[in-house]
Amino acid sequence: MKTRIAILGYGNLGRGVEAAVAQNPDLELAAVFTRRDPAALSLRTPGVPVLAAEEAPAWADQIDVLILCGGSATDLPVQTPQYASLFHVVDSFDTHAKIPEHFAAADAAARAAGKLCLISCGWDPGLFSLARVYANAILPQGKDETFWGRGVSQGHSDAIRRIEGVLDARQYTVPIPAAVEAVRRGEQPALTPRDKHLRECWVVAAEGADLERIEREIKTMPYYFDQYDTTVHFISAEELARDHAGLPHGGSVLRGGVTGWDGEHRQTVEFTLKLDSNPEFTGSVLAACARAVHRMAEAGMSGCKTMLDVAPAWLSPCTGEELRAHFL
Amino acid sequence: MKTRIAILGYGNLGRGVEAAVAQNPDLELAAVFTRRDPAALSLRTPGVPVLAAEEAPAWADQIDVLILCGGSATDLPVQTPQYASLFHVVDSFDTHAKIPEHFAAADAAARAAGKLCLISCGWDPGLFSLARVYANAILPQGKDETFWGRGVSQGHSDAIRRIEGVLDARQYTVPIPAAVEAVRRGEQPALTPRDKHLRECWVVAAEGADLERIEREIKTMPYYFDQYDTTVHFISAEELARDHAGLPHGGSVLRGGVTGWDGEHRQTVEFTLKLDSNPEFTGSVLAACARAVHRMAEAGMSGCKTMLDVAPAWLSPCTGEELRAHFL
Repeated sequence: MKTRIAILGYGNLGRGVEAAVAQNPDLELAAVFTRRDPAALSLRTPGVPVLAAEEAPAWADQIDVLILCGGSATDLPVQTPQYASLFHVVDSFDTHAKIPEHFAAADAAARAAGKLCLISCGWDPGLFSLARVYANAILPQGKDETFWGRGVSQGHSDAIRRIEGVLDARQYTVPIPAAVEAVRRGEQPALTPRDKHLRECWVVAAEGADLERIEREIKTMPYYFDQYDTTVHFISAEELARDHAGLPHGGSVLRGGVTGWDGEHRQTVEFTLKLDSNPEFTGSVLAACARAVHRMAEAGMSGCKTMLDVAPAWLSPCTGEELRAHFL
Repeated sequence: MKTRIAILGYGNLGRGVEAAVAQNPDLELAAVFTRRDPAALSLRTPGVPVLAAEEAPAWADQIDVLILCGGSATDLPVQTPQYASLFHVVDSFDTHAKIPEHFAAADAAARAAGKLCLISCGWDPGLFSLARVYANAILPQGKDETFWGRGVSQGHSDAIRRIEGVLDARQYTVPIPAAVEAVRRGEQPALTPRDKHLRECWVVAAEGADLERIEREIKTMPYYFDQYDTTVHFISAEELARDHAGLPHGGSVLRGGVTGWDGEHRQTVEFTLKLDSNPEFTGSVLAACARAVHRMAEAGMSGCKTMLDVAPAWLSPCTGEELRAHFL
C-alpha cells in the first residue's frame, strides 16, 4: 500500500517534492493543489490532477499526507494550522525564532482533529537540527558551530533586489576555509560573523544606475551585510542567467567537545551537506518525512512533532529486519 | 530525578562510560559490577560501590539502566540476554554480521521480562548507522561509502600480536585522501579495499625474531591485510608506549546521491568523527543511550531496540520546548 501524497504549492520546492516522490516506489503523488489557476500548471508526473486549493478538503479520504510547499513568511503560519485540521501534514517552516509559536498553533489544530503534523522539515531546520541534538546529547561539554554554503541565500538575494536601480541579484554565502578547519581540528575558536562567512553578490543594475551607491548600500545593509566582508560584482542579465541559474547550497554543523576526567581528549562531530539543488534536496527530505508521518499516524500518533521526535527507522522504506541486517 | 546507571565491566569502555556519566548532571553512577575481584578496582567516582557481577540481581530496584561494557566476541552474546531479563540494558555489540541473531536473543529475553534493551550503541554500529539510514531515506538513488580512521583497530592489532615473535603491536587504519575527496565531490567512484584504506603497523618484536618473516606474515594475512597496502615498522616497547598509547579513531560515512527527473543534480551527505579517544567517545554515546532507555521504558516501551528506533529527542537532557527553541 503506497503512501498517497498531495502537494500544496507548486514552486521550486513543490517541484522538488514531485521529483523526490517519483524516486520512491512506496510513495505516489495523488494530487497537486495550487492557489494559481490549475490550468496554468503542467506537472511532470503523468495522470495527476492539479486542483484549486479550495478543493483540498474534499480530497481528504484520498490523501495520506499533505506536504505544504509555501513560504515561511506568510503562507505556512496560516496554512499549517488550517490544513492540520484536515490532513496529516508536513511543512518546512524555517523561521527559527518563530518555531515555538508555529508549533503551538499547529499542535492545537492537529490535536483537535486527531491528525499528525510534522513541522520544520528540511536541512536547516531539519537535518542540521538533528546533527546538533545528537552531538550535544553525546558531548555535553563542547561548542557548536554552523557554516552555510557555498550556496545561494534567497533572503540575501531578495534584500539586494529591493535596492533602487537593481534589476536582479544572486547572493552566495561562502564559508571561510580557515575558520572551518580550526573548528574541524577541535580548537573551539571564538569566531565573529566576519570570521566565518564571506558574502559574494552578483548584481544586474538598471542602465545608468549609480553603481557606487548600489555597492555601498549593499555593503552597509544592517545585519544582512554590514557584519561581513562582502564583494559586489556587476554583470549583465544574460550572464546572471547563464552562470547563476542554479540553487546550490549546503554547509556544515560541527561540535567540538572534550571527554575524560580533565577534558583531555578532543572529540569532533561533523555533519556536512553539499547540494547542487537546494529545493530538490529539501523536497527529498519532505518526501521521506511524509513516509514517516503516514506510518506514525497509522501507529496512533497525533499532534505536532518535529524531526527530533521521529525515530530514524520511520523515515526509511526498509523494515526493521532489513535495517538491522544492512544498515546497522 | 536522576537516571541511576550501573556499569558491568570496567575496562577501557567501562571507564569511558564512568567519565561520561560524570559530565551529565541528570545521570548518576549507582554501581560498578565486575567479574574480577571487586577489591582490585578503584573507581574515579567517589562513593560508588564496586560489586561482584553475581550481586547484580539484588540491585535491580536501585538501578534504572545497566550498561554492559564487555566484548562482542564472547561477553555480550551471553550477558545481554541474561541481564535484559533483570534490567533495562544498553550494549555496544559490534559484530555487524551477528546483529540479527543478537537482536533476536535480546528481544526474547527483554520482552518476557517487560524490560527495554538497546543494542549496538556507539558510533559504528551506532552514529554511522544513523547517518546511513537518514541519507538513504532521503537520497534513494545513490551510493554509500564508509571510511575509517585514522585510528587504532583493536582487531587488527590483536591479529598482529598472535604472530610468533611479536610482543606487542598497534595497527592504524588510514583512509586514503584521494578516495575520500572523490566521494566528497559526489563522483561515486568504484573503490576496492586497497583504494580506500592503508594499514600502518607498529610492531615490537622479540629479541632475535625473524623480522622479515613477521613482516611477510602480516602483509599476507588473509582478509586482515592482504587486500591493503600495508607498512610495517619495528620499534621498541618504550617507543610503542611513548608514541602509541592513545586510542584515537573516527571516520566518515558519505552518501553521494542524485535528484531531479534525470538525476542531474548531485547531492552529498557526509557524517565525520575525529576522536582522540575511541572508548571515551563510545562511552559518551552509551551514557546518552542510557538516558533514552530510561525515558522510553518509563513511557512503556519494552523489548529490544537499536538507535534506529530512538527518536533523537529521547537522547537529549533538554525538554521538547528547549529543543525546539534552541536546537531546531
